[in-house]
Amino acid sequence: MHGRPYFVTLLSCLLWVSTALGQNQRCRDHGIKIGILNPGKHNAITDVKGVQVGHQTLIRGDSIRTGVTAILPHPGNIFQNKVPAAIYIGNGFGKLAGYSQVRELGNIETPIILTNTLSVPVASDALISYTLMQPGNEHVRSVNAVVGETNDGWLNDIRGRHVTESDVLTAISSAKGGAVQEGNVGAGTGSVCFQYKGGIGTASRILPVSSGGYTVGVLVQTNFGGVFELNGVPIAKELGTIPSSYTYDVDGSCMVVILTDAPLDARNLERLAKRAMLGIAKTGGIASNGSGDYIIAASTAEENFIPYTSTKSLKTYSVLRNDAMSPLFLATIEATEEAILNALFAAENMTGRDGHAVKSLPLNQVLKIMKKYNKR
Amino acid sequence: MHGRPYFVTLLSCLLWVSTALGQNQRCRDHGIKIGILNPGKHNAITDVKGVQVGHQTLIRGDSIRTGVTAILPHPGNIFQNKVPAAIYIGNGFGKLAGYSQVRELGNIETPIILTNTLSVPVASDALISYTLMQPGNEHVRSVNAVVGETNDGWLNDIRGRHVTESDVLTAISSAKGGAVQEGNVGAGTGSVCFQYKGGIGTASRILPVSSGGYTVGVLVQTNFGGVFELNGVPIAKELGTIPSSYTYDVDGSCMVVILTDAPLDARNLERLAKRAMLGIAKTGGIASNGSGDYIIAASTAEENFIPYTSTKSLKTYSVLRNDAMSPLFLATIEATEEAILNALFAAENMTGRDGHAVKSLPLNQVLKIMKKYNKR
Amino acid sequence: MHGRPYFVTLLSCLLWVSTALGQNQRCRDHGIKIGILNPGKHNAITDVKGVQVGHQTLIRGDSIRTGVTAILPHPGNIFQNKVPAAIYIGNGFGKLAGYSQVRELGNIETPIILTNTLSVPVASDALISYTLMQPGNEHVRSVNAVVGETNDGWLNDIRGRHVTESDVLTAISSAKGGAVQEGNVGAGTGSVCFQYKGGIGTASRILPVSSGGYTVGVLVQTNFGGVFELNGVPIAKELGTIPSSYTYDVDGSCMVVILTDAPLDARNLERLAKRAMLGIAKTGGIASNGSGDYIIAASTAEENFIPYTSTKSLKTYSVLRNDAMSPLFLATIEATEEAILNALFAAENMTGRDGHAVKSLPLNQVLKIMKKYNKR
Amino acid sequence: MHGRPYFVTLLSCLLWVSTALGQNQRCRDHGIKIGILNPGKHNAITDVKGVQVGHQTLIRGDSIRTGVTAILPHPGNIFQNKVPAAIYIGNGFGKLAGYSQVRELGNIETPIILTNTLSVPVASDALISYTLMQPGNEHVRSVNAVVGETNDGWLNDIRGRHVTESDVLTAISSAKGGAVQEGNVGAGTGSVCFQYKGGIGTASRILPVSSGGYTVGVLVQTNFGGVFELNGVPIAKELGTIPSSYTYDVDGSCMVVILTDAPLDARNLERLAKRAMLGIAKTGGIASNGSGDYIIAASTAEENFIPYTSTKSLKTYSVLRNDAMSPLFLATIEATEEAILNALFAAENMTGRDGHAVKSLPLNQVLKIMKKYNKR
Repeated sequence: MHGRPYFVTLLSCLLWVSTALGQNQRCRDHGIKIGILNPGKHNAITDVKGVQVGHQTLIRGDSIRTGVTAILPHPGNIFQNKVPAAIYIGNGFGKLAGYSQVRELGNIETPIILTNTLSVPVASDALISYTLMQPGNEHVRSVNAVVGETNDGWLNDIRGRHVTESDVLTAISSAKGGAVQEGNVGAGTGSVCFQYKGGIGTASRILPVSSGGYTVGVLVQTNFGGVFELNGVPIAKELGTIPSSYTYDVDGSCMVVILTDAPLDARNLERLAKRAMLGIAKTGGIASNGSGDYIIAASTAEENFIPYTSTKSLKTYSVLRNDAMSPLFLATIEATEEAILNALFAAENMTGRDGHAVKSLPLNQVLKIMKKYNKR
Repeated sequence: MHGRPYFVTLLSCLLWVSTALGQNQRCRDHGIKIGILNPGKHNAITDVKGVQVGHQTLIRGDSIRTGVTAILPHPGNIFQNKVPAAIYIGNGFGKLAGYSQVRELGNIETPIILTNTLSVPVASDALISYTLMQPGNEHVRSVNAVVGETNDGWLNDIRGRHVTESDVLTAISSAKGGAVQEGNVGAGTGSVCFQYKGGIGTASRILPVSSGGYTVGVLVQTNFGGVFELNGVPIAKELGTIPSSYTYDVDGSCMVVILTDAPLDARNLERLAKRAMLGIAKTGGIASNGSGDYIIAASTAEENFIPYTSTKSLKTYSVLRNDAMSPLFLATIEATEEAILNALFAAENMTGRDGHAVKSLPLNQVLKIMKKYNKR
Repeated sequence: MHGRPYFVTLLSCLLWVSTALGQNQRCRDHGIKIGILNPGKHNAITDVKGVQVGHQTLIRGDSIRTGVTAILPHPGNIFQNKVPAAIYIGNGFGKLAGYSQVRELGNIETPIILTNTLSVPVASDALISYTLMQPGNEHVRSVNAVVGETNDGWLNDIRGRHVTESDVLTAISSAKGGAVQEGNVGAGTGSVCFQYKGGIGTASRILPVSSGGYTVGVLVQTNFGGVFELNGVPIAKELGTIPSSYTYDVDGSCMVVILTDAPLDARNLERLAKRAMLGIAKTGGIASNGSGDYIIAASTAEENFIPYTSTKSLKTYSVLRNDAMSPLFLATIEATEEAILNALFAAENMTGRDGHAVKSLPLNQVLKIMKKYNKR
Repeated sequence: MHGRPYFVTLLSCLLWVSTALGQNQRCRDHGIKIGILNPGKHNAITDVKGVQVGHQTLIRGDSIRTGVTAILPHPGNIFQNKVPAAIYIGNGFGKLAGYSQVRELGNIETPIILTNTLSVPVASDALISYTLMQPGNEHVRSVNAVVGETNDGWLNDIRGRHVTESDVLTAISSAKGGAVQEGNVGAGTGSVCFQYKGGIGTASRILPVSSGGYTVGVLVQTNFGGVFELNGVPIAKELGTIPSSYTYDVDGSCMVVILTDAPLDARNLERLAKRAMLGIAKTGGIASNGSGDYIIAASTAEENFIPYTSTKSLKTYSVLRNDAMSPLFLATIEATEEAILNALFAAENMTGRDGHAVKSLPLNQVLKIMKKYNKR
């Protein structure tokens, strides 16, 4: 009898603590399972062996709400050991740097950086600095920096371009494996998604051994609109937060980074990247006119790393056949959907530029709606 | 009191009749509403003014289960008055004819034909015949036939190539406006979708007047796989019909035709076409490796028709600005999703080649599941 | 003194014989050397080991002037052992069949057929028949036929669609290695190029051993316009046959097929294909609005053949690195330019539909001009 | 008798003066006419009404040899009045910024900047600054900077990244109409072409009135390799400067900017852009693996300017029909070829980083060779 209030108080306290630490429960912790495949240990892009993620979060004064997220496909010198890669453009209203060379040569040679729209140049510059400075790159005179972005200008003083080269280098140097911080961190600090606070989210899927046992990891920067659905439940309809998305232009973008240890060539990585759009669709995203939806996909299979220089003109690849791709497609769709939801679950209320306030997803209401639709 | 059994009997009788006529109730008739926008009068591609659809269904003997569906963007001479158009390739494991010229010139100059994979050539040939024979085309010596397909080889003796030029011409000549027959008709006669009987489906959306009041009509030929969801409800999970889609290649394809009276140029039609993939995603489609997912989009706005020849080198177009596109994107996603569901609701049990039998969606069970998830 | 007339008579006689046999001298036989690399033994696409070419020429009555050319990447069952391939679209005003699947899957699974614009369907149908009938393909129910075309409607009664399935099968079955017949044969029978008689042409290049020693073979079907130049010499200007190409639409198209034993993946084959447009440029081609310029490229390196089915999900490829590609680009440009010239040198006067007459390149005049510009 | 030495001295003097002023004679001044169409008044991109070009040249100490070139499609606020545009990627080994948004939306909203490879970020940043600062753009929070580059790292200390934001803004503010400085200026300061000193070049073509009388202007930044030909004359062969281009990777890139007053939509601008590759081909360029060949094309027809915001959802365009494009294609090819040659004729000897020296085209020898081939 007395126990319950006590227990509740303790629980509240713990929840407060976890909240204060930016450790909100993730989508799956609430019993909401997306899809039919299992996630990896951390349910994060870092479940792909060797992958590291780092954030630099800029929250200063009333109006700086932005940051940088760095994703490293492997811990070595990426310029000297490039990874097979592709970028798919879901909707190209965006400023991603590095597209054409990845398309032409089929590889990525830098860490992948996410930041805000107007900080793509400084992030590109930082990647050049990073690459030129790395031991072994003393003679490098050409660097294809890969930088994605979304526009956090509602909450952030984006015109002030507050991200510095140092911020980008810090994000890279702080990158590590293991659990990935989500929500209002790094490049997701100021983002808005379905009118709620968006942010960084991540998820992963492991294929059954019969399908190769590969891991697909996804990280998203969510800043887009549409008619929000949570695992098929019409949250936006229920909450009355249907945007007038059909009468005016929905702002925002979604950046998706996919890494996998499955040995894929650039062509099949492009096909994989394309499937992330299907994951976005399942959350209610519509790839609106104003959206910059880019998907960067790379394979971390070490045997297929592409050395910068070689004495041999031939390179041997062992890659998956076309007809082994479908399970990876499914894994990508599921992980993208869940990564977006994780971003929404992790993000918290944020007030920024000109007093603009964006609320986090109203979790209690949402969970009640999920129950109404028997989806918990 | 006595009335009820009597009424039920009558209802059953009527249902039997409608079933026998291939007039199953559509998704929406069961109270299942997809999305937030309203459909047009017929909830069909023919809600777009001037659009006509015709089917030629081939069900013969034990193993011929195929056909042809013709979609006419307008009732005139399409070669002489071409329509702005685009084709987006969601996944290119397919044999669609006509892609490159549509991409280069931004228009379509023939009726759009759907049929089976190995009958694309005969259908193309028929479109050439059709065009050459039309009054006014006596000097035409180049025709870009647009033909899509899916592979109905499970139920149909596809190797026998039973579709004839005459079948294609019949589909064209029988094309008409108004309600469109769905399910096991025309190019959908032998198709399979999510392990159930697929077929032809259609739907439409009308934008609010504030967004221009345009109509978007979609027609689909459903022959694809994935993990079926109905308006967000996990039907495949509940019915235990999750394919081993993650361990082997899922067969099949989805052809989508979008017509709209919104005045769009080829570039924005391509963007519109891209959104249909998001509608496929919401039914659980994954665009598997073996899928040929092509979306053909055209604008029927008469003032933008492109005359074959002209004494003027300039042509004036009045087209929607980029930032007016988002409502049309949403309409496309919704109409595609609903068209796929309509195909599944309309299609009926079919037995074909080598005794292969494919069941229709088990409607009673499905509706019960919908109730369980409070989605009716 | 007496010798000369005698010699001249003999020479004329020999020339007459060679002409009668369709064995005109080729560009290089006149001392006109294109580029800096050496051709292979036959200076033909068949210099690539295993490659075979067959023609079926239709010259009947007053107005049938068309045909079929078949190119086989290897002599085996191509469906069971697909070749890595790509198709580049230089200008897409054409009806090539098979593009999207080649783009998606990176391979070709049929012989490559060239014919006239309105006979693409019958040729596609024939390739399906061919494939279904081949031993080992009894269960095949999907075939991606690759068929290119140009429009021979000036000389040929193209509306009559005189090519039959049997003609296509004959072209395939008659395919052989060794010297390739050029000019008014096969798919080049009725083509027109720079206002002269066009046709089929071919050429090859061998890379130096230091660059891998690979062979690049090109075959073209020339039916395009522009301002003709021969090895940099302004023939069109000199002959006063500058088309009013800058005041009206230049008809015609150029189909290019590139085969190489260099081990290339689909991505680098697409890049290779792109370079053929540079070869076209050097002859004065402008890829006019009405031109269907498609380049099909495939690698015949046997170790990279792609088996239709496999018990393994992984496939090992040994392919050239990006930075080994440039010599192959140069080889492609040179061989394309020379193949076009060979077509023009081999083609002879032709009269066809409605009495339309097209003259062959006026060789004597042309050679005089070449001398004037010190290019012989 | 006495006259001649005197005359020669005077001529030398004049030549010295013109050289000192960076006013070398242009290709056409030597009687070398490229193609069949006429150039405009300045034979420069500025012949297109309203177009302005500005250079900022950085030659400092032993190793800074770089710069910035700015091209303004019109003199107004480009962000508020965007121009229909397209970018074609000939070979994507480059770092051009802005591609995907131009592709998606069909317009350009900033001046076009050319610079060196590693200065793309600073130039993008400068374009953002420029745009944010412009009167009327106070609320702009998204800018798609378009920046092209080639790698001047042989002569320039490219790793030092010496271009500053101020340099870029200076190039923009100094932009003007009229004659355009060519050779070792702006973004061409440190470039190398066919082993000779490259640089900036420009040319234009005017269509006959019967073809609409439109102007096509081209500006190039030449930094590429291949087997040099001058108006069809094999200069590289004659000078023995055939690169071992077929045994190793040819460095370098070619940036091409095309502006025209012809009213074209984005689709036809992309087609136009594609033709510039044919002009590159005619100089002997091969689009080598290491080349970043990008062509930016925009239409300056004022009536088609795209306002940033509009109260109307419809926009009316008057654009050229597809079948009016061929003359513009020819004009583009010719102007691109001549612009490249002008760059080579204007560029002068340059010594830079680590004492690397690059000679200008040996004009006397070249003109002799031209005479040998009767091409003067």
